[in-house]
Amino acid sequence: MRVRETELVEKIHRVLGRRHETSREVRLGMGDDAALFRAREGQEIILTCDWFLEGTHFLRDKHRPLSVGWKCLARAVSDIAAMGGVPRCFLLSLALPVSHTGRWLDEFLTGLRRASRKFRCPLAGGDTTRRNEVLISVTVAGDAPADSAMLRSGARPGELVYVSGRLGEADLGLQLLKRSKTAAKSANPLIRKHLYPEPRLALGQWLAQKRLATAMMDISDGLSSDLPRLCAAGGVGAWLESARIPQAGDGDIARKYGLDPLELALHGGDDYELLFTVPPHKAKVLPKSFRGVMLTPVGRITKGPNVVVGEENGRERPLVAGGWDPFQR
Amino acid sequence: MRVRETELVEKIHRVLGRRHETSREVRLGMGDDAALFRAREGQEIILTCDWFLEGTHFLRDKHRPLSVGWKCLARAVSDIAAMGGVPRCFLLSLALPVSHTGRWLDEFLTGLRRASRKFRCPLAGGDTTRRNEVLISVTVAGDAPADSAMLRSGARPGELVYVSGRLGEADLGLQLLKRSKTAAKSANPLIRKHLYPEPRLALGQWLAQKRLATAMMDISDGLSSDLPRLCAAGGVGAWLESARIPQAGDGDIARKYGLDPLELALHGGDDYELLFTVPPHKAKVLPKSFRGVMLTPVGRITKGPNVVVGEENGRERPLVAGGWDPFQR
Repeated sequence: MRVRETELVEKIHRVLGRRHETSREVRLGMGDDAALFRAREGQEIILTCDWFLEGTHFLRDKHRPLSVGWKCLARAVSDIAAMGGVPRCFLLSLALPVSHTGRWLDEFLTGLRRASRKFRCPLAGGDTTRRNEVLISVTVAGDAPADSAMLRSGARPGELVYVSGRLGEADLGLQLLKRSKTAAKSANPLIRKHLYPEPRLALGQWLAQKRLATAMMDISDGLSSDLPRLCAAGGVGAWLESARIPQAGDGDIARKYGLDPLELALHGGDDYELLFTVPPHKAKVLPKSFRGVMLTPVGRITKGPNVVVGEENGRERPLVAGGWDPFQR
Repeated sequence: MRVRETELVEKIHRVLGRRHETSREVRLGMGDDAALFRAREGQEIILTCDWFLEGTHFLRDKHRPLSVGWKCLARAVSDIAAMGGVPRCFLLSLALPVSHTGRWLDEFLTGLRRASRKFRCPLAGGDTTRRNEVLISVTVAGDAPADSAMLRSGARPGELVYVSGRLGEADLGLQLLKRSKTAAKSANPLIRKHLYPEPRLALGQWLAQKRLATAMMDISDGLSSDLPRLCAAGGVGAWLESARIPQAGDGDIARKYGLDPLELALHGGDDYELLFTVPPHKAKVLPKSFRGVMLTPVGRITKGPNVVVGEENGRERPLVAGGWDPFQR
């Protein structure tokens, strides 16, 4: 099977929007040397990029191309959500084996198109090449009103630490997926969260616009990896109350499979929930959920630099990063 | 040897600028979920991304990390030059074997820093992971005054086709490099052009600002691949006069090594020269060179759709893409 790079690019165009198809911001999409993007007045541009690599971030036999297409964009869009921004367009760097330029590519592009429409984030350009494994790098450009983007560094001692949703769900979904014999089981909501994560765009924008949060980031590598990063950025510490961390299925499902739900909630990656800090007087008015997504206070910012976990038995232990670190595997 | 992802990111910060180090446009660099970039008023943002993969775009034993660092950014910046834009910041997606996190990374970052300073294009963010081979994807954000970015699609019949510099130099440099036993021979200007290409930023900006060109792109895959793309984008054809194409060392060096200089000039990749079209009345006032870079008319735009080469013996043949196509190797 032979294919030209031009044909591949044409196929991507066909599925993800024709050449020169534009949104309000994107004046020129794929088909030129670069994309053209016009920022709305008074907006700041947000730029982020994310790897999504076969064997590292997904497995050929466990992850359908539909999920690969969705998730590679969802991951990067989650970084825009974490800043309180609105995604505007994305660039796709795609390397494929020739064997993947037929059905695999079709299904991948279908998943990518679904995510692109869901997040209102059109394709604006990219680069393709051949490779013996599937390599993906996605860049997303978004925007936010000038000086309103939420940084990691704004947390101050005494503020409350919040998380959205439940933690460890995606990791539990991955464990269930690994135990299943087929790649299809996406009816299970935990597996679905692992395969088709939904970045918390509306929540992030609301927290930023209402100036409810002082610092924010998304939980992509696990709370035990990401909370210390938020603390380090602000020069603060944190005290985490383990009993308060909302677990997947309140812990029952994990225990059924012989897994520790607290460990999953602390160290599990890929949840793409938001981690944010709220001053006490604003926490009083913060609702318990936003558009169906739980908002839970799980601890408090301290003078630092230590990040500790308070256990149910009253003991404290340092929070040790046990989340995703590709160099520690 | 063990290394944490955090340490790796810290090293990149150290070499390429500290956290929150800013230029006029970049408000927030590495260390948060995403970078913040403020466009100057009336400017359009230009976005581009480029793969640079070990085994595909460079070879472990032939390309020093200094060159890998320089070239991965130069390639992407060349797309900004091709639009007549100014580079403003870049994102680095880097995947590395653990064995490459020491000296290799240091030298790579040195090359990247040199390019970053030369092109005035600071690092604004990125993503790192582990991999058994070196994988790089670079995204560059640039800008240009609204509606002044040069597209590929503007060529009209009767206009002259120009190229900057000499074509086939980088490919000839690669051939010389492959024949050399060490990875060091960058004193040779042809090998240097292959290892340390210089995007034609000043030329691209000048052509766009003075509105001298009607269509423009960079020659990255070779003239025989790129000219048909420019023609297809504008719905035109072209007639190329082979005798006029400026060759590396006027052809003598290629012949000395038993290579055909015209073939190199037509199909050789990696030159990063500019290909542009100029209306006849503007061609009359176009200088023969700009800041030491030759500007040569090599043919004419026709009604199309055919792209043909006129040979020295008076015969004509269709221009068949013989340049870089990863899916045709």
